[in-house]
Order: sequence, then C-alpha cells, then structure tokens
Amino acid sequence: MQQRIGREIWLKHYPVGTPTEDVFEIVKADIPEIKEGEFLIQNIWMSVDPYMRGRMRSPEETKSYIASFRLKKPLEGSCIGQVIESKNTKFQIGDYVFGDFGWRDYWISNGNGTIKVDSKIAPIQSHLGVLGMPGLTAYVGLVNIGKVNEGKDTVFISAASGAVGSIACQIAKIKGCHVVGSAGSDDKVEWLYDNIKLDYAFNYKTVSENNLSAELKRGCPEGIDLYFDNVGGNHLEAALDNIKPFGKVVLCGMISQYNRTEPLAGPSNLFLAITNRIRLQGFIVRDHYNLQNEFQSIMSKWISEGKITWKETVVNGLENAPKAFIGLFKGENFGKMLIKV
Amino acid sequence: MQQRIGREIWLKHYPVGTPTEDVFEIVKADIPEIKEGEFLIQNIWMSVDPYMRGRMRSPEETKSYIASFRLKKPLEGSCIGQVIESKNTKFQIGDYVFGDFGWRDYWISNGNGTIKVDSKIAPIQSHLGVLGMPGLTAYVGLVNIGKVNEGKDTVFISAASGAVGSIACQIAKIKGCHVVGSAGSDDKVEWLYDNIKLDYAFNYKTVSENNLSAELKRGCPEGIDLYFDNVGGNHLEAALDNIKPFGKVVLCGMISQYNRTEPLAGPSNLFLAITNRIRLQGFIVRDHYNLQNEFQSIMSKWISEGKITWKETVVNGLENAPKAFIGLFKGENFGKMLIKV
Repeated sequence: MQQRIGREIWLKHYPVGTPTEDVFEIVKADIPEIKEGEFLIQNIWMSVDPYMRGRMRSPEETKSYIASFRLKKPLEGSCIGQVIESKNTKFQIGDYVFGDFGWRDYWISNGNGTIKVDSKIAPIQSHLGVLGMPGLTAYVGLVNIGKVNEGKDTVFISAASGAVGSIACQIAKIKGCHVVGSAGSDDKVEWLYDNIKLDYAFNYKTVSENNLSAELKRGCPEGIDLYFDNVGGNHLEAALDNIKPFGKVVLCGMISQYNRTEPLAGPSNLFLAITNRIRLQGFIVRDHYNLQNEFQSIMSKWISEGKITWKETVVNGLENAPKAFIGLFKGENFGKMLIKV
Repeated sequence: MQQRIGREIWLKHYPVGTPTEDVFEIVKADIPEIKEGEFLIQNIWMSVDPYMRGRMRSPEETKSYIASFRLKKPLEGSCIGQVIESKNTKFQIGDYVFGDFGWRDYWISNGNGTIKVDSKIAPIQSHLGVLGMPGLTAYVGLVNIGKVNEGKDTVFISAASGAVGSIACQIAKIKGCHVVGSAGSDDKVEWLYDNIKLDYAFNYKTVSENNLSAELKRGCPEGIDLYFDNVGGNHLEAALDNIKPFGKVVLCGMISQYNRTEPLAGPSNLFLAITNRIRLQGFIVRDHYNLQNEFQSIMSKWISEGKITWKETVVNGLENAPKAFIGLFKGENFGKMLIKV
C-alpha cells in the first residue's frame, strides 16, 4: 500500500497578543501503518474554540487548567472523522468517531479517548457543537452552576450568538426564563430575535462602553437574576450594575481577555457582589463530563422536538484553520466555527 | 422632674471621599417623657463600624443594601445601654439592652428592636463585638458562606486583627485550619502570632503592592482554599493569584474601597476564577440573624473554654465618635472600635 501523507498544523511559537497566521505552520507527515488494536481516522470536521488560546501560552506563562500546546507538534482540538482502516474489532471502517486529535488530516487511535458518534440525531458535526462540548457547557453552566429557576429568572447571556451562548439562550427559553442576549453585529441580533426568540437582544458594538449598563437596564428592567458570562470585561461590570439581590454570575469564558498582553482591570463595581449577595462561580466543562449522557439524551429530545436550532460558520480546508481560529476573536463566527477538512 | 437633655450626633451633609469631622455635628435634644409601654435607655457603649460609610451616601448615589442616613437626624448605629426609666413591664430599670439607636446619649424604646443582653458571659460591650454583629459575621462567613472544611482548608483572612477578622481567624483555628492573616501594623502582626496563634501573619503596609502575592505564597505554599475578604482591592487580586482549584472567596467587606470617589479597578486576574473553578460569594450578616441564637450559644461556650480572645479599642466620649469612625479607615482600631459614651 502506498504510504499515506497527511497534513498537520503546528504551532511554531507562542503568540503574543492576538495570534497571527505566522505562528502556525502546515507540515506534511508520513502516516505509519496501523498496528493490531489500532485504527486510522480521516478527519472530516474540526473544531476551533476560543479556549485553545489559553493553551497557546508557554508552560511558564500559563496558569491555565490544561497544559500548554507543545511547539512543533500537531495542535490538539476536537474533531469528527471516519474510520478508514481498522485492526480494532470495536471500530469498523465507516464508523464516525469523535476525538481530541485535530488539527490534521489523519490520526491513529487505539480506542482511548475516541467515541463513536451517532449520525442519526443530527449531522455528525453537531457533536462538535450543540451535542458536544459547547452544548454541554451551556447546559452545565445554566443548570448545574447557575441553578436557573424555571419560569422565574431573568437571564442575561453574552456572546449570545456564539456556540455556547446560542444554546444557553435556548435552554433558558425552554425553561421559561426572560432571556436577554448581546452579540457583535446587527445580523446576529436579528437572528437572536427571529430564530432564538430572545426577549431582548442588542449589538454591543454599537453601544458605547458606558452605556452597556443602560442597555441592560432596558432589557432587564427588573434586574438580572443570572448572568452567563462568556465575555468578561465591561460586560461583566454592566451585568453587576444590573444584578438583583441574590443574583448569580456564571463565569464561563472571557473572550474579551484572551489576547491581552497586559492584565486588564476587573470590574470596578465588585463591591455590589457584597451588597447584593451575589455568587460568582467559575467552571470548566471538563469537570462535568459525567453529565454528558444525561445532557445528550435531553438535548436529542429537544432537537427532535424542534426546540433547538443552531448556526454553523464553516471554513473549508484544514489549511484555513489558523485563519478561522483568529477570526473567533474578531467575532467572525456566527454560532459554531467549524473546519471542513 | 427636670427635663432631660441629651446629645446626638447628626450628619450635616454626605461626605465625599474619606469623611472629615466637619460632616458631623453634635446637637442637644430635649428628651420627652416616656409614655405607657415605653422605657428610656442611657447609652453606655456605642459601636462604630466600617459598613456605616455605605449609609453616608445620598439616596441617589447609594446602591447599598440599607437606606442612606438621613441628614440632620441622629446617626444610627449599634449600642448597649441601661434602662433608667420604664413604663414597660418587660424592661426593668437596670436592664442592659442592645439596640440600633446610637449615636446619642439617650433613646426611648417600646421594645421593638431592643434586646436584653446578658452581662454574665462576657462584658456587656462584647455584644457589640465578639458576641454581636462582628462575631456573627465571622461565623456566618466562614461556616455558612465559606463552608470551611474542618482540619483541611488553608484560610486567608485580611484585616485579621479587626473586629470581624480576628474572630474569623480564631474560628478557623478552632476548626483545625491552616490560617494566614494580614494586618496593618507590626504590633497587630505580633498579636496575631502571639495571641491568635496564626500560622502566618504579615504587615501588608510593609509589603509592596506587587509583592502581596509572593507574601501569600510564603504563608500558603500549597495555595488558599478559602479567602475571607474584608479588604478588596489588591488583597483580593493577590488571593486569586494563590487560590487552589475549587477554592472559595467570601466577600465580606472591602474597606479599601469605601472612601473612593472614583471607581477602582477590580482584580485583573478574575479569569483565574474560571480556570480554577472558584466561587466568590458576597453576603451581609443581616440575612443571617436567624443564626444568632446558634451562634451565641457556640461562641459563649468557646469563650468560657478560653478559646476566643479579642481586642477592643475604646474611645471615650460620645463627642469623639466621628473621630473614631474616621480612624477606622486609617486602621486606628485594633480589634473592635468602641465608644464609651
């Protein structure tokens, strides 16, 4: 059999500030023969996620919860592929599988960390989005961390048209909440009104920094019970300005901060957390993978009932993954950002 | 009977920044005759507390949990007095009582909001400190909000020699924790080591702002499980730098912030709350008065067993209350700041 050659995307050096394409390189690699118990996967879909920026820091610099990416090695990330060769009885040629071994054309697995995915519920790439890590993040954040009160809470969700935010919005709506979202373009806001049926949505880019709090006051005239924070920075400050006594802040992500080279000041009104008896709680989805089955079963039901919709921004070609990743920080994604390998 | 005349301290106008003595005035007031069901109290002890700064803001400015002080009216604050006239069968002449009606020489009660205090457990003024609101604050913060893990947690307490902090330190020690405290003078640090038996204590005023985190690293080499925050500002930031995964931050007070005229930037490392899955929770003791009996019974036992000690800074004379209050923000108190009327 002819030797297979696959492309891999490597990190050349750790970026300073917003990553540029020159920190990445595309490398061709020989794909070895699979051994007994192994199988070969050809990637079809690959996920680019904001959290990956946290791994693009040197081991000295990072205080992140997962290890730094190694330089001159293929970048790791979630992917969906298809088994094209197998010497493992549990994985057959043609099976679709999920793994954390993108960004590359091919990878070899012995089964560890590799999960078969069901293509019947929804298109296979939804296991990188609504049925995958972003969906579970939205679910855990609202339900387990935020302890959303059904039919009662006023919920504010930032980055509401993003992969996590858009699912969080819909779960909150399913749970009968008054839901307000922010997004970074008028198109996204329109989609939030028309498709996600938000009670209030606004384009934060057209709201001057000092007026974010006033904008939230319009959307949540009686105050916020639960803020699902994907953004940090002035969004968090404005939410604290509007939070109700005994309100909750779910700290899920701070995309406004990830590329900062200098520390950015935190919210200047954190004192309100005392006077209003607020709980702010950070979480990472990895601690909650035990809820994956419960979540997938509930989410599959909602999808089959037509209660959940989602957007994908698809970038074609493995070689365009760096550009797509960089685009996340400019809000170029609308919903889940995916690479069609 | 001769008409009684009492002194009252009024707020003339709302202070900007750190209060100065000219915002207060001493006024003489006629004390009316008591009516059926009422009794007259002569104040003996009066409490000055940092939280009162929050009430010295105009109703427009304040977002605080309790109403603004009214101008040209006696300031309200906790006090201990003795009944000197009574037309109420439940309160006899000679009874010691607690109320929220300082700062003045005399007040009249019909019993509402007035509690008899037991002078047998500890000196009566301890009902303004260790057995009163500051003690309950320390207890609720550590136990109910912080959910301190007995024998396991490393606990950092700022303003550790203050009325709340010093009790929190001792409760944490009773619960078998590794306890680290910060204070604002070498004398206070010495007391924390010698009398409170802290595992590590430091004078934050001799630590440069950037080294606070390194100082905490020395005191908590394995990281902080629970930070009891009385200070805010750079203390909070340094604590977040050193917090363990799944750590807790009890937001009790932010004395560094109370006199700010401009908003002060919050912690620039709040992102660590996500990566380390931290819970930050604000509380106010007023919501937990239902625990007062449980607390007093436990605290009385600890006091009788010699497990709790405390410091008082006593300022003589009602007329000196404004000066004593202002002194709180300069760290002039060592333990509980009291006025001996």
